[in-house]
Amino acid sequence: MATIKDVARLAGVSVATVSRVLNQSPKASAHSQKVVAEAMTQLNYIPNANARALAQQSTATLGLLVNDVSDPFFGAMVKAVDQVAIQTGNFLLIGNGYHRASQEKLAIEQLIRHQCQSLVVHAKMISDEDLQAIMRQIPGMVVNNRVVKGFESRCIALDNRYGSWLATRHLISQGHQKIAYICSTHSISDAKERLEGYQDALRDHGLTPQTEFIAYGEPDENGGEQAMVSLLAQGRHFTAIACYNDSMAAGALAALTDNGLQVPEQISIIGFDDVHVSRYVRPRLTTVRYPVVAMAQQAARLALALGNGLAPPPVTHLFQPTLVIRHSVARLDEL
Amino acid sequence: MATIKDVARLAGVSVATVSRVLNQSPKASAHSQKVVAEAMTQLNYIPNANARALAQQSTATLGLLVNDVSDPFFGAMVKAVDQVAIQTGNFLLIGNGYHRASQEKLAIEQLIRHQCQSLVVHAKMISDEDLQAIMRQIPGMVVNNRVVKGFESRCIALDNRYGSWLATRHLISQGHQKIAYICSTHSISDAKERLEGYQDALRDHGLTPQTEFIAYGEPDENGGEQAMVSLLAQGRHFTAIACYNDSMAAGALAALTDNGLQVPEQISIIGFDDVHVSRYVRPRLTTVRYPVVAMAQQAARLALALGNGLAPPPVTHLFQPTLVIRHSVARLDEL
Repeated sequence: MATIKDVARLAGVSVATVSRVLNQSPKASAHSQKVVAEAMTQLNYIPNANARALAQQSTATLGLLVNDVSDPFFGAMVKAVDQVAIQTGNFLLIGNGYHRASQEKLAIEQLIRHQCQSLVVHAKMISDEDLQAIMRQIPGMVVNNRVVKGFESRCIALDNRYGSWLATRHLISQGHQKIAYICSTHSISDAKERLEGYQDALRDHGLTPQTEFIAYGEPDENGGEQAMVSLLAQGRHFTAIACYNDSMAAGALAALTDNGLQVPEQISIIGFDDVHVSRYVRPRLTTVRYPVVAMAQQAARLALALGNGLAPPPVTHLFQPTLVIRHSVARLDEL
Repeated sequence: MATIKDVARLAGVSVATVSRVLNQSPKASAHSQKVVAEAMTQLNYIPNANARALAQQSTATLGLLVNDVSDPFFGAMVKAVDQVAIQTGNFLLIGNGYHRASQEKLAIEQLIRHQCQSLVVHAKMISDEDLQAIMRQIPGMVVNNRVVKGFESRCIALDNRYGSWLATRHLISQGHQKIAYICSTHSISDAKERLEGYQDALRDHGLTPQTEFIAYGEPDENGGEQAMVSLLAQGRHFTAIACYNDSMAAGALAALTDNGLQVPEQISIIGFDDVHVSRYVRPRLTTVRYPVVAMAQQAARLALALGNGLAPPPVTHLFQPTLVIRHSVARLDEL
């Protein structure tokens, strides 16, 4: 690979002159600019971003931490942030926390080491204290999908409890009273808040939450399938199911179909998130929309402004989920 | 954020001493190591990876280019390469080409600028000439899912034609003779080779490929749904369908279900790739397995060895797909 010395030699100028051209210094003459550009093209020279970053004290790099890029929910988040990065001339660095506090911390440190002055972090396992310590150091760090005490203006979150309340109320409005819930085993605020939203909606409509109607699983298709099987094993005493997310709902739907139960004719089911899968399972899933793209893009714009010492743009700090009605919920009196 | 000067001041040593400790120089005394480590902990100091990379001429950074991380196929690829990166103490930088030659080229350049000496590249749109020029410069660059002339030992590919031949032969072995094909509109080698494999299998079994049995769409669920609708619009003259990939097969399956056609009782369908979706649509998809994890991991190990000037590990350069039998194909005589 060609070096800056090779460029200087071919252009017949000093290394310092090449450096001035690369850094767009006003001291670089028009002639230097021309011969250096020609030599760079001829040698296919790619400037060393690290050296330039150190010289310019600027990196044009945006960092993003997610749980796991191979999860479609986080795939959508990555794509949304990458669009902002491309539009603003930044390069996106991505880290994965894989649902472990130690890995989340390590990945954040590595993004910082790679000169990300602006960071969007989706981390649910790392402690508040650790997160606060890092946020104090990095003014361009924004947290997505979590509220960190003392840093509320740099957090963007979803009203999970309301979303789950909305889903459960929709089932109740369709005449259902015996409503089961499929919950995530992950001990994160999302799981807790969505379960509470389900219980609140029942109570608000004069129904009593029953622990035997709640089943747990990993927040993916497999987990949903297993939770559904454990609910069915106890006898089918419910007519509808609210789920932690669409992946679990898709797994639960598959388990119902495998057991000869018709959705929504015999059992209604509602998801959460409105990811891709909700549109191509059959019946199409009625669900609650998580505005993942809008939230991620606002988080990215906020992080870029703060990381560059600019005034923060107006962003929504608490997003509201909305109901998306498709074909997996039916009125009970039609059953 | 604390700087190296703050660390030196608190430790009561020179900046050069801190630097020696950071770079694990044998000249750093045990005392220096102790006081610098204490000061770093107290200040929560994170060394600047760029400065250290320049000093050490080593970066421990692995780059990966994919089409689009939000596509589940590439999500699986990213996760597989990230696992190798974590195991080997590297940090993974990810770029997206978004199916455009200009963006593929830009993303590769940005990965190189960010000091990736080892690179795994999945790029289908960039020209052979551009790819060859970059590969000549970057000895640690490995191409996944494409064979680049002159660099065959740094390429890892799948026998796409054989996979599609295998899928079509399976349908023929189940008594089907009128077999449609749902093809991708992307003009990449995968699309061409998979279509040829379907046509070869027909000819090898005395059947004549018919152009009216081929429909095209974007390689996702929507594209599969649209292609299926256009096939059905011409009248149902076929009993089975082979598909470019599982996402298209899932879309086609949804279109069949929506039109009251039973799979596999009335129409058999087979996918390609064996991504997640194939397991949770109903009926579960019979498909052809693309060993995406094994291929990506071997590509990553090869790139890391070459990027560090080591002897290349033994890797498989042409992987073979295998048939995965689930529930979307039935024998014609059972129809």
